Amino acid sequence: MRLRNKPWAPEYLAAHPEVVAQDAAAWYGKWQERFPRTQPIYIEVGSGKGRFIAQMAKKYPAINFIGIEMQVNAIVTALDHLLEEEVDNLQLLAVNGAELTDFFAPNEVDQIFLNFSDPWPKKRHAKRRLTSPGFLKIYQEILRSGGELHFKTDNRPLFEYSLASFSQFGLTLKQVWLDLHQDAPLDNVMTEYEEKFVEQGKPIYRAEVQFPPKKA
Amino acid sequence: MRLRNKPWAPEYLAAHPEVVAQDAAAWYGKWQERFPRTQPIYIEVGSGKGRFIAQMAKKYPAINFIGIEMQVNAIVTALDHLLEEEVDNLQLLAVNGAELTDFFAPNEVDQIFLNFSDPWPKKRHAKRRLTSPGFLKIYQEILRSGGELHFKTDNRPLFEYSLASFSQFGLTLKQVWLDLHQDAPLDNVMTEYEEKFVEQGKPIYRAEVQFPPKKA
Repeated sequence: MRLRNKPWAPEYLAAHPEVVAQDAAAWYGKWQERFPRTQPIYIEVGSGKGRFIAQMAKKYPAINFIGIEMQVNAIVTALDHLLEEEVDNLQLLAVNGAELTDFFAPNEVDQIFLNFSDPWPKKRHAKRRLTSPGFLKIYQEILRSGGELHFKTDNRPLFEYSLASFSQFGLTLKQVWLDLHQDAPLDNVMTEYEEKFVEQGKPIYRAEVQFPPKKA
Repeated sequence: MRLRNKPWAPEYLAAHPEVVAQDAAAWYGKWQERFPRTQPIYIEVGSGKGRFIAQMAKKYPAINFIGIEMQVNAIVTALDHLLEEEVDNLQLLAVNGAELTDFFAPNEVDQIFLNFSDPWPKKRHAKRRLTSPGFLKIYQEILRSGGELHFKTDNRPLFEYSLASFSQFGLTLKQVWLDLHQDAPLDNVMTEYEEKFVEQGKPIYRAEVQFPPKKA
């Protein structure tokens, strides 16, 4: 995602400490305290401009959502969505996905969303893909036992890679969609990208995968 | 596959006992004896008119192939291909996939191919799909430890179902293709169906899955 540089972005985020945690590591193991209701925590890794996570928060008030995006030039738009929707069950976090274990305690997260992640098409960049084993290990640590990852993308090679990566990591494919918008209507919240791709008639791929139970 | 009824088919198959086993159960655990060379056995479940398996046999002389097809009206064409190609590493078997454990001993088979299997689209017919758990259990029994299943189809709902079925059965996705003929050239032998679908620009889905190691 290329975005115009917004020099005012850090200041804008800092001006909303109630919804954008300033010292993220300080909330390790305590994210529930940032929400009015103690309820399952679903995070999105790579929220971009945040339309998906803001709409999800509005649609599912009984879930606490956290949108994570390291590009401050994008997350300021997510903040705008959040403020417009006036939801109390969405927090934003401007950090890198690789650092999630610094910000979340083991089992603190109930579910993870990945939407239209960067495909990193070159083989030597495979480790940067958010569905590569290094990231799956991070997700496994912060997810509760048997937690789920819901992933969608328009990028065929990334999806092919991801299905094999999930399987080889020991995750179970609960359900797979190879053309999401051709199938029976689904309770699907679209991202900015998704709407564009669907207009172009491109198939959207989606998978729901489950992590194995953790040993007690 | 709809085929013209060929009343002469059983007689034609019976006239070639050297390549079409007449009493299949009699060869249980002894299929290697039907080939001139002892080498890995790869079977195709649902060979149809047999072009794939005949071409594979010609291409890979160091593998013993067995094409299995219960429709005698189709397998007679496979027999024609076999006789034309003059291969000595292909046998045909006119039986039902559900009965494979009656004809193959545990671990007797090294690899299984499923190509363009009947999608059985109705949910109540899911058990008839050749990638459903009942069939995977049969394949597991006759396959060697860590044996592989190679599956391709043009049917999106069948492929979606199959990926989840494989994963939930405990198989590992080694590699997945979501548009086989868009990817880098592959050592791919096409079936009759495949050639037709590729001409129509339809994507072909393919998966290579591995069964778990068997306990000693």
